[in-house]
Amino acid sequence: MPVQTLKMGLIGAGRIGRLHAEHLTSRIPLADLLMVADPFENAARSCAERYAIPSYGRNYSAVLDHPDIQAVVICSSTDTHAQIIEEAAQAGKHIFCEKPIALDLLSIDQAIEAVKRAGVKLQIGFNRRFDTNFRRVRQAVEQGEIGQPLVLHIVSRDPEPPPIEYIRVSGGIFLDMAIHDFDMARYLVGSEIEEVFAQANSISDPIIAEAGDVENAVVMLRFSNGVIGTISNSRHAVYGYDQRVELLGSAGAISTENNYPNAAIISDAHSIHRDLPLHFFVERYTESFIIEMMAFVDSVLRDEPVQVNGNDGRIPVVIALAAHTSLVEHRSVRL
Amino acid sequence: MPVQTLKMGLIGAGRIGRLHAEHLTSRIPLADLLMVADPFENAARSCAERYAIPSYGRNYSAVLDHPDIQAVVICSSTDTHAQIIEEAAQAGKHIFCEKPIALDLLSIDQAIEAVKRAGVKLQIGFNRRFDTNFRRVRQAVEQGEIGQPLVLHIVSRDPEPPPIEYIRVSGGIFLDMAIHDFDMARYLVGSEIEEVFAQANSISDPIIAEAGDVENAVVMLRFSNGVIGTISNSRHAVYGYDQRVELLGSAGAISTENNYPNAAIISDAHSIHRDLPLHFFVERYTESFIIEMMAFVDSVLRDEPVQVNGNDGRIPVVIALAAHTSLVEHRSVRL
Amino acid sequence: MPVQTLKMGLIGAGRIGRLHAEHLTSRIPLADLLMVADPFENAARSCAERYAIPSYGRNYSAVLDHPDIQAVVICSSTDTHAQIIEEAAQAGKHIFCEKPIALDLLSIDQAIEAVKRAGVKLQIGFNRRFDTNFRRVRQAVEQGEIGQPLVLHIVSRDPEPPPIEYIRVSGGIFLDMAIHDFDMARYLVGSEIEEVFAQANSISDPIIAEAGDVENAVVMLRFSNGVIGTISNSRHAVYGYDQRVELLGSAGAISTENNYPNAAIISDAHSIHRDLPLHFFVERYTESFIIEMMAFVDSVLRDEPVQVNGNDGRIPVVIALAAHTSLVEHRSVRL
Amino acid sequence: MPVQTLKMGLIGAGRIGRLHAEHLTSRIPLADLLMVADPFENAARSCAERYAIPSYGRNYSAVLDHPDIQAVVICSSTDTHAQIIEEAAQAGKHIFCEKPIALDLLSIDQAIEAVKRAGVKLQIGFNRRFDTNFRRVRQAVEQGEIGQPLVLHIVSRDPEPPPIEYIRVSGGIFLDMAIHDFDMARYLVGSEIEEVFAQANSISDPIIAEAGDVENAVVMLRFSNGVIGTISNSRHAVYGYDQRVELLGSAGAISTENNYPNAAIISDAHSIHRDLPLHFFVERYTESFIIEMMAFVDSVLRDEPVQVNGNDGRIPVVIALAAHTSLVEHRSVRL
Repeated sequence: MPVQTLKMGLIGAGRIGRLHAEHLTSRIPLADLLMVADPFENAARSCAERYAIPSYGRNYSAVLDHPDIQAVVICSSTDTHAQIIEEAAQAGKHIFCEKPIALDLLSIDQAIEAVKRAGVKLQIGFNRRFDTNFRRVRQAVEQGEIGQPLVLHIVSRDPEPPPIEYIRVSGGIFLDMAIHDFDMARYLVGSEIEEVFAQANSISDPIIAEAGDVENAVVMLRFSNGVIGTISNSRHAVYGYDQRVELLGSAGAISTENNYPNAAIISDAHSIHRDLPLHFFVERYTESFIIEMMAFVDSVLRDEPVQVNGNDGRIPVVIALAAHTSLVEHRSVRL
Repeated sequence: MPVQTLKMGLIGAGRIGRLHAEHLTSRIPLADLLMVADPFENAARSCAERYAIPSYGRNYSAVLDHPDIQAVVICSSTDTHAQIIEEAAQAGKHIFCEKPIALDLLSIDQAIEAVKRAGVKLQIGFNRRFDTNFRRVRQAVEQGEIGQPLVLHIVSRDPEPPPIEYIRVSGGIFLDMAIHDFDMARYLVGSEIEEVFAQANSISDPIIAEAGDVENAVVMLRFSNGVIGTISNSRHAVYGYDQRVELLGSAGAISTENNYPNAAIISDAHSIHRDLPLHFFVERYTESFIIEMMAFVDSVLRDEPVQVNGNDGRIPVVIALAAHTSLVEHRSVRL
Repeated sequence: MPVQTLKMGLIGAGRIGRLHAEHLTSRIPLADLLMVADPFENAARSCAERYAIPSYGRNYSAVLDHPDIQAVVICSSTDTHAQIIEEAAQAGKHIFCEKPIALDLLSIDQAIEAVKRAGVKLQIGFNRRFDTNFRRVRQAVEQGEIGQPLVLHIVSRDPEPPPIEYIRVSGGIFLDMAIHDFDMARYLVGSEIEEVFAQANSISDPIIAEAGDVENAVVMLRFSNGVIGTISNSRHAVYGYDQRVELLGSAGAISTENNYPNAAIISDAHSIHRDLPLHFFVERYTESFIIEMMAFVDSVLRDEPVQVNGNDGRIPVVIALAAHTSLVEHRSVRL
Repeated sequence: MPVQTLKMGLIGAGRIGRLHAEHLTSRIPLADLLMVADPFENAARSCAERYAIPSYGRNYSAVLDHPDIQAVVICSSTDTHAQIIEEAAQAGKHIFCEKPIALDLLSIDQAIEAVKRAGVKLQIGFNRRFDTNFRRVRQAVEQGEIGQPLVLHIVSRDPEPPPIEYIRVSGGIFLDMAIHDFDMARYLVGSEIEEVFAQANSISDPIIAEAGDVENAVVMLRFSNGVIGTISNSRHAVYGYDQRVELLGSAGAISTENNYPNAAIISDAHSIHRDLPLHFFVERYTESFIIEMMAFVDSVLRDEPVQVNGNDGRIPVVIALAAHTSLVEHRSVRL
């Protein structure tokens, strides 16, 4: 008996879209990618050729209209997510959408409402939940290895800032970068964030400040179960992509180290050293991108709930907006 | 030519007083400990016998009146520090005083003023500045190894809370524990803290809350040079004394690990493991206690400025009081 | 222009054969697996179904006779390798063959001679050369990061012994296990081994001794460039698969650690611990299996020399036989 | 009641003698160092002045004749150890002697016999047995944490070779350096070495070869309980003093890392690095030197057996001579 595969369409053939295309066509046997759409036709065509996708086009409507396609992967620019979610839901397609759903809550709520009405599935691309390090932390919490969670610290830093033009329209460090960490905080602690306080500086990269954003930020968190914590973000850690958490519990603590390209240690006359960590999210989170997409495909094929739903996509935006308010108004903000 | 030694007296023969007695009599050749005083005569006598100190007594005045004694080490209870500093200064003795000078600023200011008038030296017992790990972090900052400091994180946790009777009169976690970390923050960054915001919980040890204190606290810091940071304290880290810092700079980052009783790793059928860190401050900071006292003896003998002066003793109290206010009033507090 | 792929056939559908089938069909876009053969027809059929291989059969001759197949992957039992290599060469197929080519040198030499006559390519499955850790060590040697190599130590231990029936026919620990390490030693040092001395015991697993093999062995090596070294093997490291090297050079040293399923550290009231290393070769060396096969496919498609040739397959057998002689005759053996 | 101290004399005021003088006068309260002797009177005098030792002289006989002295510490040149041990024993003094007792077995046996006749105690300076890392390994063996010992690996490397004049008279790498490791191997495994096989090279330091010694050596060991192992020595590890062991057992493994001056990790744009290990034996083994001397003082004062006796001093010499024979005759040597 042949195995049933999920017929899929891809909307957006940029960096993250091509990443998903590669995984869907080579690493996820149960997925069958039928079409890719991108307003830049060259991007759509080269993606289709590179990954042997049968058809491509400029207009995402063609994907939504494709009668065989059961599910879509939305990797277009953020400002189009909510609209496409609504249309895809109306077309009866299941939806995987990159984060964030939108930068304003009204659009998010309308998108989630459309999904609900249509009865389709919606999974949001918080891939880090599927990373083995962070899963191990969550597992420790769930299995009681460290007792009750008490204090959480997240460090999340990029090796270098994106182009300044991107920063200007990114929505700021909280919506653009920390949003992953707000999701991670909720996921690890298993409780909602109810208060934030943010501080920031742009000491070594004043151009970022001129663009209306910040280089480094720390957000203090209070969860509804009493846990307190911090998130430490930077757009510019010269030593590389720095992605760590530590969680103090009543019976112990768990912390994660960065991932490295190899486990070699070199000792010379000057120091004991190792190579820099895996450079950026593509290298660091490859496996988690694959596992999240497998989980989506599986949820649809088995008709089970997705692991990161629309509400999980909404809440980090609420937190990010509150962090922004905290920074601007220089006060603690309750959600 | 015989080497000149510093004739010293010890006031307070409790745990920390005996620690200094041991170092002064066995590890610091240039010190000559002549007398020890403690209101509990048994404590004074047993300390004198154990460390071969020529004389002892109940009253610290006898130490201040001793004509040969040039410098005193004050290890009595906190509420007596300021008064004894004043009297010692009037008696023309150089002073090493355990932290904190006092829990209120008026007493501190009077003590510092008395020291100034008398022209004696006053060093405060922030021993961690003399620890090799933290010195290495400071050295990295001074030598520009990590560029400009941007973001600081301090983790400072005790393996177990003190007796609840002690906690009740301790002045709270900020004056009792975090005060070391406030000093460390200033020392490492090389700039003053100008704003604090504190959060806390007592999830797993509600008795501490009933005693009017907190089990876990996180303080967000802003320095006058723009650096931001956090201090994460706990009175109860079941895995042991946890003393770490990490500092992100524009050209790199530096972080310190805990110290361990040995460097052995055991691999068995269940896990890869090592023994717990050095248990508490006596084990962890032995060498730094010796080095700080050597530094004091040296400063007096050479008539050079002490490395941790009265003002360095005052400022962390100011910060601790502000952190307390922040916690109680639930708002960010500028200093 | 469509990309040219390499049409391939698989001989042997056991554990390692299925591993290669998975990679060839899902991870290596330039490979096109047309057929699988295994004397156990069920094995061949289930492999074909699982990995969507167009045809399958019991007899490897069908693979060699397949007119479209350009290259074969030999994963049958060791005693058939040499014979199949000869026939495949005569059939003009390029050959990837699992190690070892054979347990006797005559068969190996005949196989290599047949390959030479036919002018086809032969790559031997020493996958560890393609592992990022060991590649980094080799890179350090090539780039002079540690100066001239002086002393090499390899630790290579299995988490548990294979079934005793397997051990009886395995050829012994040197041909079965250490053969990978003999290859690694040559590869890392870049010089030939010219003398071996072996010691062994079976203290905790006497059943292995009864089967005519040993549980633990250490082989001392001398290379023709003067480097000395050791290989430490065990069939039974209860903490898991232990695969490390360290190499002392005149300007430094390089060592590799094991690979782990995650980078989480747990601190509880008893110890600081982490999960066991990746369990066995399938988990530990997944990426290296893929990279070695990509390298083979690439070498054939570009008509370039393979990275691990027939002679590289022969020499470790010579060393393994010498180590066996050393152990039996209890003397140092020159090659 | 005053505590009874041990009255001691020091013979030899070179580097190691002064080290013991410092510890005896400042770190070991139960020791009372009355006299120091050294053929170079300046050395004896400066040592006496530096450590406030009441008397000094050129002739060690004065120490042996001193009526109050109960125990002597022999730190003179190796060729005088055996003779001084005999005389000290005849004078009824307890003896602490630096390793090795002598480079020939006849002298050693005579010295041990003299000690036996006199009924005094003799402790040999294998200080590493008192190091916390190696003690932890021994503890793991004794407590069964790793089951039965199976395979031992010792790495023991100096940061730089001694002066070539010293190497010429040192007795060679096995008697001079590896002797500590032969002792460590016996101590950790708890069984005697019964066979050795040695290989060596001097690739990067041919001057050492010209002086009749070797730069790097590896010795294979077989113990009477079946354990096998290796010792890897180098006179020139440019990254510093490298002192590690690992021991595979039937229920697990234990390994030790080097000790470092601090626990700071620096991440910059090039690598993740830390400072070099503690430079040499004085820095690395300070605490073990103190603990071994405390143990000696304690053994004498309590009249209990010493922890490292004459036979423990003899056996590593036997092994070292066998290793030398193995290297010269290029064959495995049974003891």
